Amino acid sequence: MSKDQDDYTTLLNLGREIRLLSSLSMLLDWDQETYMPKRGIDFRSQQKELISSLLHSKKVSSTFRDALSRLIDIESGKVAQTSLGAREQAALREWRRDYLIEVKLPSDFVKTFAKTTSQAVTIWAEAKKNNDFETFLPHLEKIVSLVQEKAKYIGWKEHPYDALIDLYEPGMTTKKLDAFFAELKPFLTDLLGKLSSKKRPDTSFLSAYFPEDKQEEFNHTILAEMGVDPSSSRLDYSDHPFCMGLHPHDVRLTTHTSGNCFFEGISAVMHEGGHALYELGLPSKDLGSPNGDYCSMGMHESQSRWWETYIGLGLPFWKFAFPKLKAHFPNELASVDLDHFYQAINVVEPSLIRIFADEVTYILHIILRYELEKEFLEGTINLSELPAIWNQKMKDSLGVVPETDSEGCLQDIHWAWGLFGYFPTYALGNVYAGQLYQTFQQTFPDWEKRIAGGDLAFMREFLKQNVHRFGREFPALDLIERATGSPLSPEPYISYLKHKYL
Amino acid sequence: MSKDQDDYTTLLNLGREIRLLSSLSMLLDWDQETYMPKRGIDFRSQQKELISSLLHSKKVSSTFRDALSRLIDIESGKVAQTSLGAREQAALREWRRDYLIEVKLPSDFVKTFAKTTSQAVTIWAEAKKNNDFETFLPHLEKIVSLVQEKAKYIGWKEHPYDALIDLYEPGMTTKKLDAFFAELKPFLTDLLGKLSSKKRPDTSFLSAYFPEDKQEEFNHTILAEMGVDPSSSRLDYSDHPFCMGLHPHDVRLTTHTSGNCFFEGISAVMHEGGHALYELGLPSKDLGSPNGDYCSMGMHESQSRWWETYIGLGLPFWKFAFPKLKAHFPNELASVDLDHFYQAINVVEPSLIRIFADEVTYILHIILRYELEKEFLEGTINLSELPAIWNQKMKDSLGVVPETDSEGCLQDIHWAWGLFGYFPTYALGNVYAGQLYQTFQQTFPDWEKRIAGGDLAFMREFLKQNVHRFGREFPALDLIERATGSPLSPEPYISYLKHKYL
Repeated sequence: MSKDQDDYTTLLNLGREIRLLSSLSMLLDWDQETYMPKRGIDFRSQQKELISSLLHSKKVSSTFRDALSRLIDIESGKVAQTSLGAREQAALREWRRDYLIEVKLPSDFVKTFAKTTSQAVTIWAEAKKNNDFETFLPHLEKIVSLVQEKAKYIGWKEHPYDALIDLYEPGMTTKKLDAFFAELKPFLTDLLGKLSSKKRPDTSFLSAYFPEDKQEEFNHTILAEMGVDPSSSRLDYSDHPFCMGLHPHDVRLTTHTSGNCFFEGISAVMHEGGHALYELGLPSKDLGSPNGDYCSMGMHESQSRWWETYIGLGLPFWKFAFPKLKAHFPNELASVDLDHFYQAINVVEPSLIRIFADEVTYILHIILRYELEKEFLEGTINLSELPAIWNQKMKDSLGVVPETDSEGCLQDIHWAWGLFGYFPTYALGNVYAGQLYQTFQQTFPDWEKRIAGGDLAFMREFLKQNVHRFGREFPALDLIERATGSPLSPEPYISYLKHKYL
Repeated sequence: MSKDQDDYTTLLNLGREIRLLSSLSMLLDWDQETYMPKRGIDFRSQQKELISSLLHSKKVSSTFRDALSRLIDIESGKVAQTSLGAREQAALREWRRDYLIEVKLPSDFVKTFAKTTSQAVTIWAEAKKNNDFETFLPHLEKIVSLVQEKAKYIGWKEHPYDALIDLYEPGMTTKKLDAFFAELKPFLTDLLGKLSSKKRPDTSFLSAYFPEDKQEEFNHTILAEMGVDPSSSRLDYSDHPFCMGLHPHDVRLTTHTSGNCFFEGISAVMHEGGHALYELGLPSKDLGSPNGDYCSMGMHESQSRWWETYIGLGLPFWKFAFPKLKAHFPNELASVDLDHFYQAINVVEPSLIRIFADEVTYILHIILRYELEKEFLEGTINLSELPAIWNQKMKDSLGVVPETDSEGCLQDIHWAWGLFGYFPTYALGNVYAGQLYQTFQQTFPDWEKRIAGGDLAFMREFLKQNVHRFGREFPALDLIERATGSPLSPEPYISYLKHKYL
């Protein structure tokens, strides 16, 4: 018994060092996207490479392996006879999972991957700014070749893409997603068709100029209402909004403000604020153990989409928040009332930019990227033709074609960061959130009234109690069933859209 | 020959890793002072502790020691018969120095020191804000006890303080500084007495309100004129201004802006800008070798004081810069002309805050701290009486007494950071700069005219060629003699003050 505890403590201590190092890596990324001087990029790549290699050597160290293998059979995953509790045993399961992935990646590969993507992110930002795909192309080619290699190292049974999807959403596969999207895509396409004939409200106020500094002030109002603790988090500005949890007391959000896109700015802040609440709600006592870490990227995304769409595009929230918004922008919103505002922010129509897409078309953007990434992994795409292929796919699925690559295949940071297999988690996030939202409504019959009255705390607590506090104790598919009583199903999401839009 | 090169390459590779890790430590400090959420502090201490311990183990590794000891005798410092050039041999000398210091500090001590000071800095910032010495006291007590321990580990011959001074200014001792200050103090006190009867210009405009945002804009104008490259550096705001060179292409400056202290803001920016130019001017090809690092803290300070005082309080610079300043603040400076401005910024009088002190009283502030630190090391001060002792010393040397500890013994960040032995380098910096300034004037007889015409590039080049480009190739006392033809001497500094003020 004491021996088990010793081994567990060894794992926990190494886990804490790993967490400290990965938080440094996050800080390097955050700084690179927000404040780093431009010419610092080469040195930044070297810094990241060093951290990656330190992380790798800790994760595959014999100390870690030996302690782990005394508590769980590394081949089979069977936990040894042990005095450890269920939560500790869950940590063993996740540590084993991480270990198996890590040992498959040679440290030289990890270094090269980190260095390549760190440089590529800066090149991508410039390329997006200048609508210059050609400059980004050789970096993308290198990254795609590296992720193909990565899939080989990790291994897969049915499709090389499975190796990457599983990194972000454990247990998910191309086959499951194909089926999942096959159910969603026709419904969404059909719904989009039905809504296209709907009378469109005047949305001109949404593209009017809202002073950036006043938008930035209001961002803080939103975060305060959401309950994102400013003493444990901060908001900055970057090309692409993101959220990083270095620690439950040090969470970094960024957003992007544009004078003529004020509502996109609000949506981005609510989205990143949702991620932030998850990171702030993780149990800090478990830092270093998988139990102190988020469950899966899809589950993370359920939290961001909850706030961005289910709440941030919902009437109850704006019943209480619209008067605040109007008080903050009295001139800009002089002629807009709540009903008009609500109709305008919920217009459904095909658009170019994923992060600004409405609830109906959003997943169609994801499917496009999912299909492309599958082909990247199969090696069946000539990357120099990506802009043309992208545009064709946009035309086929949404009926619109970007005029520039900045609004097309250069719009997302993910590929520059080497994040392949990540996009599907956005779709899963919407669906997990749909299930949680249904349970939430059943649990609190007076939820609309309470939210309309400005009470968001009980909802935050619902998410914390059902999702945040568990860390990685349960796999995502178990957690969603535990929280909602049902296995993964797109049904609540579909019902929600039907109820709202039809 | 090839063997020597192999060992040298081993040192250089380890040196690069050490530089990468220390740059991470700098980033953690920079972030803590600028953007980190308040509650992130405990985790930040853990991050810093980990980096410190990684740094320590690399610096004392047997790989490093073995390669080093084949090239230089670690006991005697005698370089082995070698094919290495003079610059490489200089690197060996400095690596040996660093190694000898590092092996004397046990890694547990290094960890504790890093963790303690990281926490203390945040406590200090709050204590300074709230004029609350009591809260800071236990932290200061712990730090003083740690620096006493540090001096014991490092070892000393004549005075425990020597062990610490030598860390920042190699070769400098309490004995040398006692003699040095014994020459300067009576001269400065006498000069201060003589100037006290001088007619004081109207300085009310210096304490008028200058909008912070306009000051912040002008800060960038100054840095641009100084030639501080914005693509390799950035300016932020913190309680205490500082400059950190992560790499010659990633230099972080901070300053502090206050509505009613606009000229102090300009001085701070020129001071930190001088540090930044040194970091930007270091040879990036030598990164990882001592030759890519700055010479000493005193030499660093010579660069900041050069820009802050010799230039930033000089008439030639303001002949070209005052019209720009006046154009930027037309209302605030409506009734001020160049002559009036120059007289006002050069008023000599006793004051409370070191960083805002004039050129004559500045070193008296340093001597006060020097005397206190000697006593801290001797253990002859009851730290709970520090505020009273500080105030008494201010009265004795400058004739003024602070009303709050915030303006007294809490004003500097150095002790919270564990930087004891550092203050004397500020005095040395003024004196090195005096020697360099004399040589500069002799080298460029038309220097006043050129600077008054806005040409600062030739002066920046003079500093780069005579100081920056060498890194640590020469010890400070050799470098100053090489650059000026004379050994260390306060004489040029004294002449400069006499010429300017008498």
